[in-house]
Amino acid sequence: MLTEYLSAEINRLALLGKLPLHRQLYEALRSAVLGGKLTSGHRLPSSRDLAQDLHLSRNTVIAALNQLVIEGYLASHVGQGTFVTDRAPAKHTRRKPVLADQGAKLSSRGEALLTHFCAAQLEIYPFTPGIVDFTAFPMALWQRLQHKHWRMAYPDMLDYSYSGGYAPLRKAVSDYLRVFRNMPVDTEQVIITTGTQQSLELCSQLLADFNDTVWLEDPAYWGAVKAFMATGLRLHPVAVDQQGIAPQEADEATPPRLIYVTPSHQYPTGTVMSLRRRHAILAAARHHKAWILEDDYDSEFRFSGPPIASLAGLDSDERVLYMGSFSKVLYPGLKLGYLVVPKRLAAPLKQAHYDLNRPGQIPLQAALAEFIEMGHFATALRNARQTYAERRRCLLESLRPCLGSSAQISGAEQGLHLCVNLPDTLDDKALAQRIGAMGLTVRPLSAYCIRRTDIRGIVIGYGYAPFADIEQHGPTLAKAMTAALARYGG
Amino acid sequence: MLTEYLSAEINRLALLGKLPLHRQLYEALRSAVLGGKLTSGHRLPSSRDLAQDLHLSRNTVIAALNQLVIEGYLASHVGQGTFVTDRAPAKHTRRKPVLADQGAKLSSRGEALLTHFCAAQLEIYPFTPGIVDFTAFPMALWQRLQHKHWRMAYPDMLDYSYSGGYAPLRKAVSDYLRVFRNMPVDTEQVIITTGTQQSLELCSQLLADFNDTVWLEDPAYWGAVKAFMATGLRLHPVAVDQQGIAPQEADEATPPRLIYVTPSHQYPTGTVMSLRRRHAILAAARHHKAWILEDDYDSEFRFSGPPIASLAGLDSDERVLYMGSFSKVLYPGLKLGYLVVPKRLAAPLKQAHYDLNRPGQIPLQAALAEFIEMGHFATALRNARQTYAERRRCLLESLRPCLGSSAQISGAEQGLHLCVNLPDTLDDKALAQRIGAMGLTVRPLSAYCIRRTDIRGIVIGYGYAPFADIEQHGPTLAKAMTAALARYGG
Repeated sequence: MLTEYLSAEINRLALLGKLPLHRQLYEALRSAVLGGKLTSGHRLPSSRDLAQDLHLSRNTVIAALNQLVIEGYLASHVGQGTFVTDRAPAKHTRRKPVLADQGAKLSSRGEALLTHFCAAQLEIYPFTPGIVDFTAFPMALWQRLQHKHWRMAYPDMLDYSYSGGYAPLRKAVSDYLRVFRNMPVDTEQVIITTGTQQSLELCSQLLADFNDTVWLEDPAYWGAVKAFMATGLRLHPVAVDQQGIAPQEADEATPPRLIYVTPSHQYPTGTVMSLRRRHAILAAARHHKAWILEDDYDSEFRFSGPPIASLAGLDSDERVLYMGSFSKVLYPGLKLGYLVVPKRLAAPLKQAHYDLNRPGQIPLQAALAEFIEMGHFATALRNARQTYAERRRCLLESLRPCLGSSAQISGAEQGLHLCVNLPDTLDDKALAQRIGAMGLTVRPLSAYCIRRTDIRGIVIGYGYAPFADIEQHGPTLAKAMTAALARYGG
Repeated sequence: MLTEYLSAEINRLALLGKLPLHRQLYEALRSAVLGGKLTSGHRLPSSRDLAQDLHLSRNTVIAALNQLVIEGYLASHVGQGTFVTDRAPAKHTRRKPVLADQGAKLSSRGEALLTHFCAAQLEIYPFTPGIVDFTAFPMALWQRLQHKHWRMAYPDMLDYSYSGGYAPLRKAVSDYLRVFRNMPVDTEQVIITTGTQQSLELCSQLLADFNDTVWLEDPAYWGAVKAFMATGLRLHPVAVDQQGIAPQEADEATPPRLIYVTPSHQYPTGTVMSLRRRHAILAAARHHKAWILEDDYDSEFRFSGPPIASLAGLDSDERVLYMGSFSKVLYPGLKLGYLVVPKRLAAPLKQAHYDLNRPGQIPLQAALAEFIEMGHFATALRNARQTYAERRRCLLESLRPCLGSSAQISGAEQGLHLCVNLPDTLDDKALAQRIGAMGLTVRPLSAYCIRRTDIRGIVIGYGYAPFADIEQHGPTLAKAMTAALARYGG
């Protein structure tokens, strides 16, 4: 049984090309564990038997098994064989912190951080939102560039990174934003960070005090919620409508110090903020003397309709701090992103970024700068857009049978996820759980809500799911939703 | 003149071995700019002339010049030549943030972060404390290991890093601590962070609330002060004496939630906390139900006397969070460190670390794990100890003439800096400035004081200064101090 499954998986992966044999076996075994085909405690055949049955060399088998042991999927005991661990990353792990009370405990801030909006332990399954397919990343090229910059080996490159990051990377970012987002950015305005979390935290610490109000979208991106909680801000959720964040009179009564928005592709509803609303939110910031934090999440992936100018591009008042990351086009673990600040904030924010973080990793920054300058980033982006456009089309196709007046899609024009909006009394958490039990991870829209209780839906990512997976599992997803709607209707 | 200086520098560097020619020229030019031999606006000879005069190939000259342009020391204008920039990193840059008042401004927290205890822009000069000599780092070996781990290229390695970091690195850290610090650490207790700043911030956010009190040493390490300010804690400075942090009755009246200490080599006084004081501070933590944050700064470098157990090693009450970093033995820009937490905190802190930071860089973690496992870390540490011991001896020798009843050294048994304690009415800031004008960077002890005004001294690092520099400049340093003491006495 196992051998047959592994053979089939390996053949499937072989068709996709590119992967070395040990990687194919690794993937096949890993998916068997994650998919529940191999359960905790299961004893694997010996590497000799596996090699024989699968017609692979024993070294290939051992390489794959070793990696899975390192990653905690398998454990090996001398003389007893190799087993699936009981610590194999489980789905939907949500740990409620319980500290033995010995007088010392977590702070209230700490308890709150651990109780709300926690990321699952291991998030990469088909349909998990917020994840991209980094298996397509041009690894060999990237490796060559890194190698090259390590060879240069100037000692300044081993030191901390001063003045907002490695100058050529800051220049590459400003060139990229000029070309792709039509933003007139001066290199001096760019600060290289370890990604959006660090950018948000820096802005929060430098521009807001304890208990200052931050307006944020409801529903919201978890990472941002965490950053604001950790830095002591008061969260004021503002409901999102079809045009993006929509402050009402009641909201104006709680004037913000910061306004955090994801205008290109609101996370998680997928709404694209209209031009009119963009001007309105800029006016609101001016009125309240607030700073806008623009997380230009997913702006790279636009599939239909004209692009809309970023808030930073429309800002005549120097109130917008603009942030992006390279992880959606390259790979998540890269940990390089950028923050573009108004000129008057450049000097203080660079100094504070250095003082608070002692940034480093210059050889990596140098490799990335060259990767962008030589046009590889643009190529990777073009390829990714094409790949994701196909997956998107396939997913939309699969979902068609369950759509209707009570189930409508939003957010499919842009980004790497979409949202199926469901009737506001349907239990989307239970539905997501039923879908999870089928081995597919989707997220209930209500899980992203901070205060509002009027929206329900299922958030589906197609960034990580290979085309074949979408083709295979998309109909299952649609069927589960149709069934839920039928139960709900009846 | 310039040619002669460069030739001499290149010859000096050639004697030290190891560096390729372009690196030697780069170093020589860089030190000419930093040392003020080449001032802003100075036009360099053409690369052709430089090559001829220095008997180097033109490619070598161009490689060195290009790197200096990238790093901002030089600027090149077509048809005009290459100039020393006016933005060449200046010494003692302290930017006071001034924002044009357009209604929006920095927060009070931001202003405070930028006004106190700011790091200089570029810190690497001989005698700057807190800096190490990473030019000795085995670059080629490190590059090979990185290359190897990139070749393995499992997709999980490109993703975020879950569960506190890459398992083999966490194991390598626990093995290291068991052997070198005699600490019985379970791998589960280790969280890989980007260094002490991130470790401090995580502890602060999870274990303390806004306005909770943190006891910290006075004088204190700037980075820690910043982390606590940024996370909204109330700083309660506790004076350090010959045995380390010494809470008085008055301090007990402000009970702490956190106690931050650097017991191995107090920064900046260099005091080693006595065993008796260690037990006392553990008892104080128990009494106040507080957490201890132990920054085991410089514990790697002990030159005389028996090693003293870490607080974490003495802690029977699970109250100590222990942090270290690899940057002192490897290189600062690596950005990998570790936090060892009590078992009851392991699960919540790992989860929060993931949620707040989305850590990554697994290939780098894998390379470092192998570097440690294969014994290269131990070798590098041994070499570094030897190198630093020689420098320390040379510096102590140079300083002897200025020592006496009114100038005494503390903190020379351990770590990479020492402190010359001076009479408490001598202006150490003015003295440090006079020494700075000679091209040597040292820090006045009073600049590290938070509340107290009773100590004066000069903090001198020997981590970054090559032996030859100490031999050459040490006597200058001693003379400047002798002169200051004479003026003071007279």
